[in-house]
Amino acid sequence: MIERKQIIGFEQSAEGKDMLHSVNPATGEKVGDFYKATADEADKAVEKATAAFQVYRKKSGKEKAAFLDAIASEILALGDKLVTICCTESALPKGRIEGEMGRTANQLKMFATLLREGSWLDARIETANPDRVPAPKPDIRYMQIPLGPVVVFGASNFPLAFSAAGGDTASALAAGCPVIVKAHSAHPATSELVAKAIQKAAKATDMPDGVFSLLFGDGSTIGSQLVKHPDVKAVGFTGSYTGGKALFDLAVRREVPIPVYAEMGSTNPVFILPEMMRNEAEAFAKNFAGSVTLGVGQFCTNPGMLIYEGSESGKDFTIKLEAQFKQTNPGVMLATNIYKAYKKGVEHHLETNGVEVLAKGQHSDALNTASPVLFKTDSKVLHKHPHLSEEIFGPSSIVVEAESKKDMLKIAKNLSGHLTATVHGTETDLLNHADLLDILEQKVGRVIINGFPTGVEVNSAMVHGGPFPATTDGRSTSVGTAAIFRFTRPVAYQGMPQALLPDELKNTNPLGIWRLVNGGMSKEGI
Amino acid sequence: MIERKQIIGFEQSAEGKDMLHSVNPATGEKVGDFYKATADEADKAVEKATAAFQVYRKKSGKEKAAFLDAIASEILALGDKLVTICCTESALPKGRIEGEMGRTANQLKMFATLLREGSWLDARIETANPDRVPAPKPDIRYMQIPLGPVVVFGASNFPLAFSAAGGDTASALAAGCPVIVKAHSAHPATSELVAKAIQKAAKATDMPDGVFSLLFGDGSTIGSQLVKHPDVKAVGFTGSYTGGKALFDLAVRREVPIPVYAEMGSTNPVFILPEMMRNEAEAFAKNFAGSVTLGVGQFCTNPGMLIYEGSESGKDFTIKLEAQFKQTNPGVMLATNIYKAYKKGVEHHLETNGVEVLAKGQHSDALNTASPVLFKTDSKVLHKHPHLSEEIFGPSSIVVEAESKKDMLKIAKNLSGHLTATVHGTETDLLNHADLLDILEQKVGRVIINGFPTGVEVNSAMVHGGPFPATTDGRSTSVGTAAIFRFTRPVAYQGMPQALLPDELKNTNPLGIWRLVNGGMSKEGI
Repeated sequence: MIERKQIIGFEQSAEGKDMLHSVNPATGEKVGDFYKATADEADKAVEKATAAFQVYRKKSGKEKAAFLDAIASEILALGDKLVTICCTESALPKGRIEGEMGRTANQLKMFATLLREGSWLDARIETANPDRVPAPKPDIRYMQIPLGPVVVFGASNFPLAFSAAGGDTASALAAGCPVIVKAHSAHPATSELVAKAIQKAAKATDMPDGVFSLLFGDGSTIGSQLVKHPDVKAVGFTGSYTGGKALFDLAVRREVPIPVYAEMGSTNPVFILPEMMRNEAEAFAKNFAGSVTLGVGQFCTNPGMLIYEGSESGKDFTIKLEAQFKQTNPGVMLATNIYKAYKKGVEHHLETNGVEVLAKGQHSDALNTASPVLFKTDSKVLHKHPHLSEEIFGPSSIVVEAESKKDMLKIAKNLSGHLTATVHGTETDLLNHADLLDILEQKVGRVIINGFPTGVEVNSAMVHGGPFPATTDGRSTSVGTAAIFRFTRPVAYQGMPQALLPDELKNTNPLGIWRLVNGGMSKEGI
Repeated sequence: MIERKQIIGFEQSAEGKDMLHSVNPATGEKVGDFYKATADEADKAVEKATAAFQVYRKKSGKEKAAFLDAIASEILALGDKLVTICCTESALPKGRIEGEMGRTANQLKMFATLLREGSWLDARIETANPDRVPAPKPDIRYMQIPLGPVVVFGASNFPLAFSAAGGDTASALAAGCPVIVKAHSAHPATSELVAKAIQKAAKATDMPDGVFSLLFGDGSTIGSQLVKHPDVKAVGFTGSYTGGKALFDLAVRREVPIPVYAEMGSTNPVFILPEMMRNEAEAFAKNFAGSVTLGVGQFCTNPGMLIYEGSESGKDFTIKLEAQFKQTNPGVMLATNIYKAYKKGVEHHLETNGVEVLAKGQHSDALNTASPVLFKTDSKVLHKHPHLSEEIFGPSSIVVEAESKKDMLKIAKNLSGHLTATVHGTETDLLNHADLLDILEQKVGRVIINGFPTGVEVNSAMVHGGPFPATTDGRSTSVGTAAIFRFTRPVAYQGMPQALLPDELKNTNPLGIWRLVNGGMSKEGI
């Protein structure tokens, strides 16, 4: 049953009167009215999280792993019930949501595996040397510890994988931090079902009341309140530049500033190099059109810009792009405001002198339904109108003709921070464009060769992040095991008796983890 | 020869007219007048650093290590010349400066060793699996790369180890980032000598012009300009709360915010537990008095607060503290403004109702000479006047009598962020106060048992950092090998051909470093 109330630790709560309306974007029909959290309810969630932290931070890696695994199981056990409500609220197709449910469970399990293995926390030991001159060397031991309660803002475009039990929640819980999720208003029912799965898992694995809460409401009210709360220690966010930057500004102006990991979107430029363009135009055009319009273009890694070097083959290339793009399908967007923003972004491009429409995808007049649009311009216009390199969230991209290799490098140099950059080239192309790759790795979190940025692997080597304005903290990733370090900091224990040291740092190495002992990696005891 | 000019890459420059006056704090005599950098000179330094970055970031670990080793050698080669000028500018004794010169060289060599070994950059490889269903697994490889030009603000209290070639400079250069140092105005001649040693080392090891610059001037003018410069990518600072917080505020308000690692001081509370207080009062009192007054109390880790539980033995304890503290010596402080701030801090304590002077050290009327002061109060007064827990930079500390263990825990819970917390206790004491240790590790970067916070080891396990307001970024350390991560971020390469991958990520593992390959640590090739 959907109760439409806040989940505050192990309780449900509905003290407010203001309501949030969940709507099926494909039909305009109401899914349900949800109680918005009051200021008191938000404070209660933080209070519970703060108390829970003192218990949760002491749980062993194995205990936290059992919790994460239980969340994964509970979510999978929701099965079709979750898929149906999620499809209704997001207008995303069933196959996509089923896949996303699997990904969400796998993310949790990945962190559970990381915790069970245990070496992630970067244990470092320098043993004492009482005979050192001029002064004895003390015993010092270092590891990562959790920051404290974390606030997570659910994303619209991943109602499961980046929402209530999404990447930020998984990495924060894995780090040892209680989580308060501000549910995205486009899928509150989905969020409630998932939050209850977490609640059930927490009870089943003996986790403290308050280790997880879910609140409904607006970012500008309840969201701001949470970010400003003195007991909140970090923030995870996926969404728009405006939303993420506003939270960052609040957080750095607090009496005690806290880190904000906001992933704020990206144009994900794609470069195609001359030989590849001559030889593989057809296949590339097909895959590019597919990547731009996948999931109605609603991915953070959607390739929103394509750069090529003008030449004879360039004409043939754009003809092929046009032909492929014409075949793409329209789709219902996640929410009315997102559809409106897409239309506005497209209109802004159309109004820009020197920008033409290269191709339009299939059209539909159905509610909130976006038609793909492929724009074309040249580098002169791009240099003059930098807004053309900003993200339009939806099934759109802009093709930019560069005058020369030098001009292509100039476009790359002018890029702001993005999540990804992609280069398509033959081996010869790539060797001839090492300078391009060199520029791009300084602009993004992930460089992709002969692939497409959509489809983000979840593993130990992924970086889903990048320099500002792609994110507010380019030193971090929101996907993959390295995301756990968002929510930790190092502490050193000097001269601490063995009995009082955490297991991770005891001489005997009871957990059998990898540690840096006097500068060398070791799994042995001391 | 001291030229008193900016060191901008391989050039010297003196375009300005404003002068900075270096003074011997012990005598008031002028050491020399230094040209303050103009805005153009500051821009020139950033411009050179930005160009140098494109060359320097491509240098191998071995090449950067050779540079760092050469800096260490050049500094040591300065020998007595450097020691003499540094003593003159800082009023610190010869033995201390000789020790600090050794530490400065050792820090540089430590990073050189780290770079030669090479595993620090956290290489992670996930190999491709084209047969995976439903979608093939791409090849993804991850490592840390440098951020770009870094601005470092030299500290007054470590004219060598946290100044021109100090910890921040060493870790930034090790990370692959060019450095621009804003010299501390209390020791410009020392800074110039060291900067020229770096300049010489850079030329000798074929490093690019601009990999290092040193500018003289004020934090509020030239310092602000550097922090706001769009091509500067990170900031390191050691100094006052006012100075560090001002730089942080500038950096987060930039169009593109950048990280600021400001170490802003700390009271470094010390707790002595009942059994230890009864059994070891004499020895503790002696060592405590020594730690408070070491180097005229001018250490970031100076123990500025001592908490004990009131009891019969408490009276005996304070008598012993008083007796030991009376024997401490006065000393010349680093600069007139630092001496004035010390006097003001002491007066502020004296004016606070409920604060008494437990003991004064020996007195001297000599110029800029601080006399040690040990204050005493109780927890009620402390709770009422939180400023008593703020740092007074200099040879002063405040002894706080707690009413009970519970009261002691309350004091601990009320602490803001500090660099260190220290607990003195017998084994029984410590086991009985695991709850105290548990609170303290959440407040600081380093917990010390039965030692003193002064004397910071430089190695792989050190954390010299801590939650705000001790620093602006508690996820980081300014001392030890982990400091290198201040100036790096991860990047992932997806589907990158072997020939274009950095050596660190090539299948053959030509550098023989530790890597995380498909989730497991390995030094083998693939």
